[in-house]
Amino acid sequence: MSKKYTIGVDFGTLSGRAVLVDVSDGGEIASSVHEYAHGVIDSVLPGTGESLPELWALQDPADYIETLASIIPDVIKKSGVDKKDIIGIGVDFTACTVIPAKADGTPLSFLPEWAGNRHAWCKLWKHHAAQGFADRINETFSGKSDPWMDTVCGKMSSEAFLPKAWQIFAEAPEVYEAADMLIEACDWINLLLTGELTVGYVIAAYKSCYLPGRGYPSREFLSALDPRLCDLFEKKCPGRIVYPGEAAGRVTREAAMKFGLPEGIPVAAAVPDAHIGAFSAGLSESGDMFGIFGTSNCYFLTGENRRVIPGICGTVEDGVIPGKFGYEAGLCCFGDHFAWAAKNAPAEYENEAKEREIPVLRLLIEKASRLRPGESGLVALDWWNGNRSMLVDNSLSGVIVGMTLRTKPEDIMRALIEATAFGTRTIFDAFRDSGCKIRRFMTAGGVPLKDPFTMQLYADVLRIPIEVSSTRQAAALGDAIHASAVAGREAGGYGSVAEAIRAMAAKTAATYYPDPAASAVYDLLYEEYVRLHDWFGRGGNDVMKRLRSIHG
Amino acid sequence: MSKKYTIGVDFGTLSGRAVLVDVSDGGEIASSVHEYAHGVIDSVLPGTGESLPELWALQDPADYIETLASIIPDVIKKSGVDKKDIIGIGVDFTACTVIPAKADGTPLSFLPEWAGNRHAWCKLWKHHAAQGFADRINETFSGKSDPWMDTVCGKMSSEAFLPKAWQIFAEAPEVYEAADMLIEACDWINLLLTGELTVGYVIAAYKSCYLPGRGYPSREFLSALDPRLCDLFEKKCPGRIVYPGEAAGRVTREAAMKFGLPEGIPVAAAVPDAHIGAFSAGLSESGDMFGIFGTSNCYFLTGENRRVIPGICGTVEDGVIPGKFGYEAGLCCFGDHFAWAAKNAPAEYENEAKEREIPVLRLLIEKASRLRPGESGLVALDWWNGNRSMLVDNSLSGVIVGMTLRTKPEDIMRALIEATAFGTRTIFDAFRDSGCKIRRFMTAGGVPLKDPFTMQLYADVLRIPIEVSSTRQAAALGDAIHASAVAGREAGGYGSVAEAIRAMAAKTAATYYPDPAASAVYDLLYEEYVRLHDWFGRGGNDVMKRLRSIHG
Repeated sequence: MSKKYTIGVDFGTLSGRAVLVDVSDGGEIASSVHEYAHGVIDSVLPGTGESLPELWALQDPADYIETLASIIPDVIKKSGVDKKDIIGIGVDFTACTVIPAKADGTPLSFLPEWAGNRHAWCKLWKHHAAQGFADRINETFSGKSDPWMDTVCGKMSSEAFLPKAWQIFAEAPEVYEAADMLIEACDWINLLLTGELTVGYVIAAYKSCYLPGRGYPSREFLSALDPRLCDLFEKKCPGRIVYPGEAAGRVTREAAMKFGLPEGIPVAAAVPDAHIGAFSAGLSESGDMFGIFGTSNCYFLTGENRRVIPGICGTVEDGVIPGKFGYEAGLCCFGDHFAWAAKNAPAEYENEAKEREIPVLRLLIEKASRLRPGESGLVALDWWNGNRSMLVDNSLSGVIVGMTLRTKPEDIMRALIEATAFGTRTIFDAFRDSGCKIRRFMTAGGVPLKDPFTMQLYADVLRIPIEVSSTRQAAALGDAIHASAVAGREAGGYGSVAEAIRAMAAKTAATYYPDPAASAVYDLLYEEYVRLHDWFGRGGNDVMKRLRSIHG
Repeated sequence: MSKKYTIGVDFGTLSGRAVLVDVSDGGEIASSVHEYAHGVIDSVLPGTGESLPELWALQDPADYIETLASIIPDVIKKSGVDKKDIIGIGVDFTACTVIPAKADGTPLSFLPEWAGNRHAWCKLWKHHAAQGFADRINETFSGKSDPWMDTVCGKMSSEAFLPKAWQIFAEAPEVYEAADMLIEACDWINLLLTGELTVGYVIAAYKSCYLPGRGYPSREFLSALDPRLCDLFEKKCPGRIVYPGEAAGRVTREAAMKFGLPEGIPVAAAVPDAHIGAFSAGLSESGDMFGIFGTSNCYFLTGENRRVIPGICGTVEDGVIPGKFGYEAGLCCFGDHFAWAAKNAPAEYENEAKEREIPVLRLLIEKASRLRPGESGLVALDWWNGNRSMLVDNSLSGVIVGMTLRTKPEDIMRALIEATAFGTRTIFDAFRDSGCKIRRFMTAGGVPLKDPFTMQLYADVLRIPIEVSSTRQAAALGDAIHASAVAGREAGGYGSVAEAIRAMAAKTAATYYPDPAASAVYDLLYEEYVRLHDWFGRGGNDVMKRLRSIHG
């Protein structure tokens, strides 16, 4: 049998990329990237020129079609492979990114009568203008036990589906009425490819509180918010739930012609971009932990059963690896911290960076890396953007202790990096305290590959070796692995996701081992971190909440 | 009788200035400034080219003579007054600024055989290289009750006389041996003018722990440090103690010729530059509080009796106003905070300041002033340079609580200004809690005149009107007032310092009244400040000390 290939497609915030991968070993044969023509629409609505309010973030689904029509033919052409040997395709997308659409999938924003209404457009994951609705949801269920709120540990993010849908209903009832569905962008792409209306389980579970066996939040749940919302999921979220490892359908003739794909190959169930990278890192056994280092950090641990671990964002059955439970936790702030520090870097540093033709962030990290552990004299709480785990409290804020007249920007930078590592250690400790084993820690992404200093620091703080995946396309490779499993053994793929992962996961580019001397110093600093963490975060001193209320 | 005049001379860190003042009303007739040729000698020893170690700060007393020879004739000439109508002179100086000298007053550094030895030079107040000796003094008396250590609340600064003298003894015994005295620069100027060896009481009390009735620290005290130091004060600090309001002597014929002064006029007792401004601000009654806003802040309150107020730097009899007790307290950091913030201002701010041709510090304050009280969302502890009052603990360090991704440099700037005001309020509260009345609060200096925003903020936080003295020469005017009292009623001056102050103090340039709405918000923030202050500063969490020990 000739060599077989699958295609992974990763729809990010600003661009989409495709990789074409060798099914036998996961080797990347070719890749292609296309930037969205409209990028993130956050200031002016195209066509009308209307100014968008603060915190809005929209996209144009036409950009997704254009991207797909560019990268699929391009990646196939670059690879030189015979189309017949492409046996499947998998797509991931940012989530929750939601498109109001007609029953045939046409986005409302494509229709002239709706294009001038901003609520008719696709709301991007980072559309934060629904915060008021998230607040009302959280207030409504505050102190109450509810199985759906439990999936988000009692606190729903403004980025989730329900606040976004409610905002449309409340602010533009005519759009809500006209939309036959409010569909996740990833499901929408799969509809485009297969002609079938499906709902990727992982996105639904994490973003819409979908619970296996119970389904979406009930009529009673929704009525508590607004009785007129009671049929939201029934009416606006049609489609068969498909689990990871399952196909959403097969590529139609129309889609095959439009995007240059082989007709009839299976399309994997929709998955979120944050999770699928775990496949490419080789996550497989219970006790495997996967960390994505980005704007914020996400950690996924696989396990055998449902666990209620206070402070963990969620426990989702089949949530990462089919057949395993996925425990998710995270930091609200990682790259964002460092971007903040870089933005606030003094002129002197800016000039030095310019002279050396490196980003000022790189200069700051370089200077921070020259300090010994503890040398900054600082300890920080990494809550610049709230705390996702273990406190699940976005009203918390950041702290720096130990400032002196000699404190330099690199001291603050180092303290921030350390604080995120300490925050990660609280997550590791919580997992271990509740009886979960953490067997391995794998990472993927730009930071792990580009920043050995930060990876070594994490290894020292966490006292665990950190394996860095060699792929720069963790999500897209994960999709290709997913597609290979969905294609099945007979087509030249694999019998299961686990089998596909074993064969195709990326190699380890580097492993960082803890340095006992550094770890010993970090143990001391971590004690300080925990003491501050508990005092400021667990009711010892609710100054952060009071400051927000004084702030008004 | 014709109009009478006195001259005040203020020796600062970089220059000396003289003002010639109308005795009847304190009106400034003329002034003259002269910068020291060598400024602060902190990198290279003149003549030898020797590099000075870190933290060293020396001066050349020849610069003081040159300054006096320039500003006295100049100010008299500019004023156009008849020399016969000048009835006295008063001098203040930075302290402790100490000159190793021969018995006739010749500084060792003037002698070719000693000029090459850095320890033979005048150590400026901010020479910080004696920190190790201050540490040893504080360790020696740690936990012990001692009347001299009580005058510094148990903690001696490295800027005080004893650490500096001990450093000379330990590091250059030959200089210590060759010096017949280690004399305060202000006493040295008075010796130059009068030919008499006197010791200004206020400097001796604040800088050398001189206690009325008990004198300098005892032989036993000194022997506890090093038996060979036991006769330090006996041998190296000769001279009659002279109190504020007393004359150190009269201008000699030689000095009159050298500096163009009338022969025989009285020279007021030496006083430190930080204290004498209180005269020009009109401090007189018990309950009058005077604040100097500078690199750090000093607060002087007058009262009727000796009080032991824990956390106050010292209670000195005749310490500010003759016949009254002076209670001194302060912040370790005021202007230094803001200089730190300006130094760390981002490039964007630097560029905006450049474009508008204003200092970046001014831009930061301007942006901070546009925020509402509480709008920054931050609360800080102002301990970047330790805490002088009420915790008397230099091992404390700064804290910022409430950081978010939206926190801007002006938010931090505002929080720092507020924190210094809250620190000041802890002092006011301590005075009041111990039964002291604070009747009025007067300030002088560049910041009070130039920065209405900060003054208003202080009035709001302290809930007391703040009177800003109109003089920009608070110290030199204070000297002229002092000189008018020393000259006496018969010569055309006054019968007492209090009388001279009443007649000659500067007018109030502006009074800032508390804004009740702002005060109400600050009351809430101050509660947060106190809660953090007590937890971090009074043993709730000694993280700052542990961070210093981890720092190594």
